[in-house]
Amino acid sequence: MATINENYLKLPGSYLFAEIARRVAKFKEENPSANVIRLGIGDVTRPLPQSVITGLHAAVDEMANENTFRGYGPEQGYQFLIEKIIQTDYNPRGIQLDIDEVFVSDGSKSDVGNIQEIFGLENRVAITDPVYPVYLDTNVMAGRTGALGQDGRFGSVVYLTCNAENKFVPQLPSEKVDLIYICMPNNPTGTTLTKDELKVWVDYAKKHNSIILYDAAYEAYIQEEGIPHSIYEIEGAKDVAIEFRSFSKNAGFTGTRCAFTVVPKTVKALTAAGELYPLNKLWNRRQTTKFNGTPYIIQKGAEAVYSPQGQQEIKVLINYYMANAKVIREGLASIGLEVYGGVNAPYIWLKAPNGMDSWAFFDKLLTEAHLVGTPGSGFGPAGQGYFRLTAFGNQENTLEAVERIKTRLKV
Amino acid sequence: MATINENYLKLPGSYLFAEIARRVAKFKEENPSANVIRLGIGDVTRPLPQSVITGLHAAVDEMANENTFRGYGPEQGYQFLIEKIIQTDYNPRGIQLDIDEVFVSDGSKSDVGNIQEIFGLENRVAITDPVYPVYLDTNVMAGRTGALGQDGRFGSVVYLTCNAENKFVPQLPSEKVDLIYICMPNNPTGTTLTKDELKVWVDYAKKHNSIILYDAAYEAYIQEEGIPHSIYEIEGAKDVAIEFRSFSKNAGFTGTRCAFTVVPKTVKALTAAGELYPLNKLWNRRQTTKFNGTPYIIQKGAEAVYSPQGQQEIKVLINYYMANAKVIREGLASIGLEVYGGVNAPYIWLKAPNGMDSWAFFDKLLTEAHLVGTPGSGFGPAGQGYFRLTAFGNQENTLEAVERIKTRLKV
Repeated sequence: MATINENYLKLPGSYLFAEIARRVAKFKEENPSANVIRLGIGDVTRPLPQSVITGLHAAVDEMANENTFRGYGPEQGYQFLIEKIIQTDYNPRGIQLDIDEVFVSDGSKSDVGNIQEIFGLENRVAITDPVYPVYLDTNVMAGRTGALGQDGRFGSVVYLTCNAENKFVPQLPSEKVDLIYICMPNNPTGTTLTKDELKVWVDYAKKHNSIILYDAAYEAYIQEEGIPHSIYEIEGAKDVAIEFRSFSKNAGFTGTRCAFTVVPKTVKALTAAGELYPLNKLWNRRQTTKFNGTPYIIQKGAEAVYSPQGQQEIKVLINYYMANAKVIREGLASIGLEVYGGVNAPYIWLKAPNGMDSWAFFDKLLTEAHLVGTPGSGFGPAGQGYFRLTAFGNQENTLEAVERIKTRLKV
Repeated sequence: MATINENYLKLPGSYLFAEIARRVAKFKEENPSANVIRLGIGDVTRPLPQSVITGLHAAVDEMANENTFRGYGPEQGYQFLIEKIIQTDYNPRGIQLDIDEVFVSDGSKSDVGNIQEIFGLENRVAITDPVYPVYLDTNVMAGRTGALGQDGRFGSVVYLTCNAENKFVPQLPSEKVDLIYICMPNNPTGTTLTKDELKVWVDYAKKHNSIILYDAAYEAYIQEEGIPHSIYEIEGAKDVAIEFRSFSKNAGFTGTRCAFTVVPKTVKALTAAGELYPLNKLWNRRQTTKFNGTPYIIQKGAEAVYSPQGQQEIKVLINYYMANAKVIREGLASIGLEVYGGVNAPYIWLKAPNGMDSWAFFDKLLTEAHLVGTPGSGFGPAGQGYFRLTAFGNQENTLEAVERIKTRLKV
């Protein structure tokens, strides 16, 4: 008699976006003439850069000819792309990596979801709260947590609260943790850590033989000096950190699917026999066994991101979204709202006024300004009372949205 | 202190293809003028069909325009592709499926590797022997097996021997099994099951509440009547079977990456509380949590496979490879070798003559005919004494290879 993985039953349903859709549909039905603008989506809207389009077309043509056709590629990704990644994203920051320390994939969601497979079930997991749900959910599914409690938190997981009180800087936990998920610039709060603040965690990991799983999907949005783009800018991180990067948010690849994960050969964890074992070898085994590589065509598109034209084009893209972020941030602040993020990230995180809860503010924003955002409580208990807006809309809609916030929202 | 997933250490290294490469390199060094032909690869060599190329180019152009640009798509795949799959691959065989029973992915390797995650660790796994290594290795990594024994078999796994003695028809096991991996047409043996032979397994699964994980990646190569293309042609299979299909081998997508998995809503397994739970819901949760969809561009390429031109073009591709298969099969038989497969599959499985073991035959083929194939022992203990050749080479090389087999191989 086949049995299911019982851990899946610990997960509550994914109600957040379904509930948003339900409330928006109801509002539209009752207000058919309202022009509802969505500032809630975490998805890009600008087309792919021209250099990427050219790269993709050229690769498609190669697949039409038997002399240039490509079948199975290396599961770890093609060397032509990995070399560009290292030379462009890492070497200029003083970070040296070997070709076989970078693994190209179909997306950071897959990688941050799958990475926990190479660790034992006995590891204690720490996540920030609020958080991108994939880190937590994949550990629940694997059986690395207890049940969901009344407080909205899973047993055995250490939640690192990030809120206005601690300036969104996760504090070291009192109990020892083994696997630490950190996403900077942060989704959903849009906040960042300085090098010194991140170093606290690297030092902790070195001291306790913990591993940091560092999601840097939004690093391209960093505008200020002194904010690390890679965790490997911190001394010692190459011994304790795995880094995730993506083409989704810098080059518009959310529907095109390409990312990469860096696993330095110096990052190690313990075997039952008490020996240190390189995680690079385990991740390589995982990927070669359960993954067959990213499409050649897509990897050629990603390679084009690193051409001089591509680098220029992604700057234009990021400037476009960051101009939106500035408008939203300043618009919210101008009516007296407490606003975070939006300086080094495409996410703006605001405190709902007058002690309102996240869903109450959702309804207020929808009914008064006909705007849709994402309730902060959807990202974890510590997100309660907060709200996320994103800079990924088009400029025209964003300006209109901010005008409505200024003129229609009663704070 | 972070600890590793200890189960990974149970896996032996992947020596098969590395050892092949080593022996070929050594031979070439000693025989620099030899023209070595490879008949060992399981990868296609013909370019993508023109209809697919056209579909890919059109989709790339859509990504260049903000009005047609696509960001995140449904993790389960686009409806336009799923509808074509159901209408073309299933409905004509009398199989009805709902849109949400088909999950598009980046490859069957990912899906057959990941599917075990939705089952409990206590399930007893059955695999055929010889076998495509991914079924076994992913269960080892998950902790569903014991250690590797002296006999080359993992503890707790039930091996279903398939050899000339039982005509490559897996026999029902004496001990009860919960998860049964069946690949038909088979890799590596190239053999198939009739509807009656497959029905034995469906009946077994229904009787014992087992689940059949049916890998049909090679179904397009079936030439004979009476061989099921889908397990759902067997009565009752929709209650007990998950089916994996791919565009890799019918349309040349090995480097382009698109596949799909069918999980009927009627397939259920037990919870700890003794209730039957739909696997469709679990797989949907797995995919929406740990996967972000197949690239839009690639799904448009796959859709083109279902156009009238695409259907014609993939027939031409399959006929090309199957003409190779016939030449190889007949060539081997003409010198008195025992040959299997190659009729409904691109794989030819031969018995090494005179009780030779697989590696000895490898060396013989390489030194006498300058040909490279794959030792059967690499696919499991029951593959010992067998050898795999593939029809995926180009026609010219295949003809030359068979000529050498006929004239140079001393049997």
